[in-house]
Amino acid sequence: MNHITRPTLLINKIKVEANIQKMMAKAKRSNVIFRPHFKTHQSIEIGKLFRKQGVDKITVSSVEMARFFAEDSWNNITIAFPVNLREIEEINHLTSRITLNLLVESIYSLEFLENHLKYQTGIFIKIDTGYHRTGLEPNHPEIEKMIDLLTSSSKMKFQGFLTHAGHTYHARGKEAVFRIMESAKKQLLKLKEKYLSIFPNLIISYGDTPSCSMAEDCSGFDEIRPGNFVYYDVMQYHLGSCTLSDIAVAVACPVVSTHPEREEVVVYGGAIHLSKEAIEADNGFKLYGYVVPLTESGWGEPIPGAYVSSLSQEHGIIKMPNNQLQHFKPGDLLGILPVHSCLTANLLNDQIIL
Amino acid sequence: MNHITRPTLLINKIKVEANIQKMMAKAKRSNVIFRPHFKTHQSIEIGKLFRKQGVDKITVSSVEMARFFAEDSWNNITIAFPVNLREIEEINHLTSRITLNLLVESIYSLEFLENHLKYQTGIFIKIDTGYHRTGLEPNHPEIEKMIDLLTSSSKMKFQGFLTHAGHTYHARGKEAVFRIMESAKKQLLKLKEKYLSIFPNLIISYGDTPSCSMAEDCSGFDEIRPGNFVYYDVMQYHLGSCTLSDIAVAVACPVVSTHPEREEVVVYGGAIHLSKEAIEADNGFKLYGYVVPLTESGWGEPIPGAYVSSLSQEHGIIKMPNNQLQHFKPGDLLGILPVHSCLTANLLNDQIIL
Repeated sequence: MNHITRPTLLINKIKVEANIQKMMAKAKRSNVIFRPHFKTHQSIEIGKLFRKQGVDKITVSSVEMARFFAEDSWNNITIAFPVNLREIEEINHLTSRITLNLLVESIYSLEFLENHLKYQTGIFIKIDTGYHRTGLEPNHPEIEKMIDLLTSSSKMKFQGFLTHAGHTYHARGKEAVFRIMESAKKQLLKLKEKYLSIFPNLIISYGDTPSCSMAEDCSGFDEIRPGNFVYYDVMQYHLGSCTLSDIAVAVACPVVSTHPEREEVVVYGGAIHLSKEAIEADNGFKLYGYVVPLTESGWGEPIPGAYVSSLSQEHGIIKMPNNQLQHFKPGDLLGILPVHSCLTANLLNDQIIL
Repeated sequence: MNHITRPTLLINKIKVEANIQKMMAKAKRSNVIFRPHFKTHQSIEIGKLFRKQGVDKITVSSVEMARFFAEDSWNNITIAFPVNLREIEEINHLTSRITLNLLVESIYSLEFLENHLKYQTGIFIKIDTGYHRTGLEPNHPEIEKMIDLLTSSSKMKFQGFLTHAGHTYHARGKEAVFRIMESAKKQLLKLKEKYLSIFPNLIISYGDTPSCSMAEDCSGFDEIRPGNFVYYDVMQYHLGSCTLSDIAVAVACPVVSTHPEREEVVVYGGAIHLSKEAIEADNGFKLYGYVVPLTESGWGEPIPGAYVSSLSQEHGIIKMPNNQLQHFKPGDLLGILPVHSCLTANLLNDQIIL
C-alpha cells in the first residue's frame, strides 16, 4: 500500500477465487455451460484465475475484447453484443484462429454476414425477454426469416437463442428476480422446442449476475453468462446478489483534504477513476461508493456514516462524520467500494492483485 | 469516416481554433493571464493549437497530466487540484525541470511541502467562494497560518489565491452566473488587498467555463483558467455558455441495430465511451447526448426528436422517431454530441482531428 500514489484498483484474490468457485459449482450442479462474461475485469491475470478452475469458454462485449483475450489463448469466445458490421475484417481475422460466436438481431445483419464472413462462425439470435434494450421479441416474424437463412448457410453455424435479462437490475427483491428468470426461461424454451428438430444442437444462453447469483439452481438453460459476480459491487449488494464481504475490489484513493466544517473528505479519485454510476442512498441522495479503511492486506468494514457523495473529473467528495474524519489527513489512503465494478475496472489501469 | 470501426472522437479543428481564439481575445481585452485548463482535451495535438495562438501557461488537474504536457515542452503548469502528497517524488522531478504551481488548502499539506520540496515551487491557496467542493473559506483562520509559513519559506513561492466557481454549473440563467462571478471576485480581491503588501506579485486566479464564456469581460481577476470551452458540450449548451454550433466534438458510433417497434436505435458507444454524465431532458428523462448525422467533413444539426436515452457498458440506446430512424441501418455511423466533453475525451483513445 505504501507505494500507491494514484487511484488504484485493489483486487482481493481470495474473494475473486471464491466468487468464481461458487458460480462454477452452481453451473455444474445445474448442468449448464459456464461461459463467464469477461467485460467486468478485462484482465489477463483474472482470466487466468478462471482458467485455473477449468473455464475454457468466455463471453466478451466487443471485438476488441475478443482479440485481447484471444491473444492470451482463449479460443472459444462469444461476443455478446449486436454484431458491429464495420468490424467485419477483424471478425474474419479472429475466426481464422478461434471459435467465435456473434450475436445477430436482424435479417439485414445476417445477410451482410452471409456475404462477408470468410470462415465458419457461430451465430446466436438475440432475444428480448423483457429488458427491451436489444434483441427481438420471441414471436417477432424476423426470427423465422433468420432461421431460414441460417438453415441454408454454409459459413454461419446457428448456436441458438441468447438473452440478457438486464431488467433484474430494476427488480425489487428475490421473488421479482426469479419471476424474470422463469419468464425468460419459458420464452427461450419455447423457441428451443420450435427449432430443435432443425438444429438438434441449439442451446439457450442466459446471463446476468443478479439472477445467476440469487438462484440456487440455473437448470433449464443450457448456458449461463454472468460477469459482474467476479468482483461484485455496491449495486449488487443493494440488489441482494451478494454480501458486502463478497465484494472483491476497492479503489485506493489518496486523501488530499479534510473539511471538518462540512464533514467532508476530498480524495484523489473522481469520475475518470470510479465512473459516474450512482445509486440512490437511503437519505435520497446519490451515492457513488462506500468508504472503507485500508489495512495492510486489504480493507475493512465500511466506515459508519461515510459515503461518496459526489464526483468531479478527479475529485471524490466523501461525506464522513467528524468522529471518523478526525483519523484521516492529507497523504493517507482511503478505500472506495465502487457502485459498478465493471465501469470502474475499465477505467483504472493501475491494478494490484492482493 | 469510412475507416471508422469503433466509437471515435471527431474533433472539428476550425471550431476548436475559433473557441480558443474567442477566449484568448477576451482574456487579452480583460487584461488577464490566460491559463487554459488542459484536462478537457488531454491531447498533445490540441495543445499545439493553443501554443500556435500564443498560449504558454496551462492548467492541469493531476501530476500525471503535468508530466504528460511537460514532455511536450510545456514549462509553466498549475496543477489545479489539492496537492496529492503521495506524489511528492514526481512533483520534485517536475520542479527540477519546469515552473510548477501547486494548490494547497491546509497548513498540514503546506508543512509537508516545506519539508519535502527540493526545488522552488509555486503555491496557490485554494479558496472556496461558494462551490463548497474544496478550498478554504476566505475568512478561514488557517489562511493566516499558511501565509505566515509562506512568508518565511525559501522553496515555496506564494503565487496567490485561486478559486473554481463550479456552482455556476447549477446556476439558472446568465444573471445568476454573473452574481457568482462577481461574488467570487469580491472575495478574492479582499484577500489580495490584505496580503498585497507582503506579496506584491500575488495574483487572483479564477476559472470555469460557464462564467468565462458568458461574461463579456473578465477584468478584475488576474488570471482565468477555463477548460471545457475548447470543445464545449450539451451541458454547456443547456447552461447557455455556447451555441450548438460551437460544440467542437462529436462521437462517431456504429449503428448495430434499429428497433422501429420502440423507435430506438442501438449504437456501439456506451458508458465506457461517453461516460454516464447526464442532464435532465425536457421530457423529464435523463439525456446522455444529442444525436447528429455525420457528413463527409463533420456533422450536421441534431436529428429532431432524437437523443441518447440510456447507456450500458458498450450499448448506447437512442430514441429516434421512425421517420428519422428509417434512414439508418446496421453498419451506418451516427454522431453523438456528448453531455460532458471532458469525460468523453478522457475515455476515447480513438480521436480524429477533422
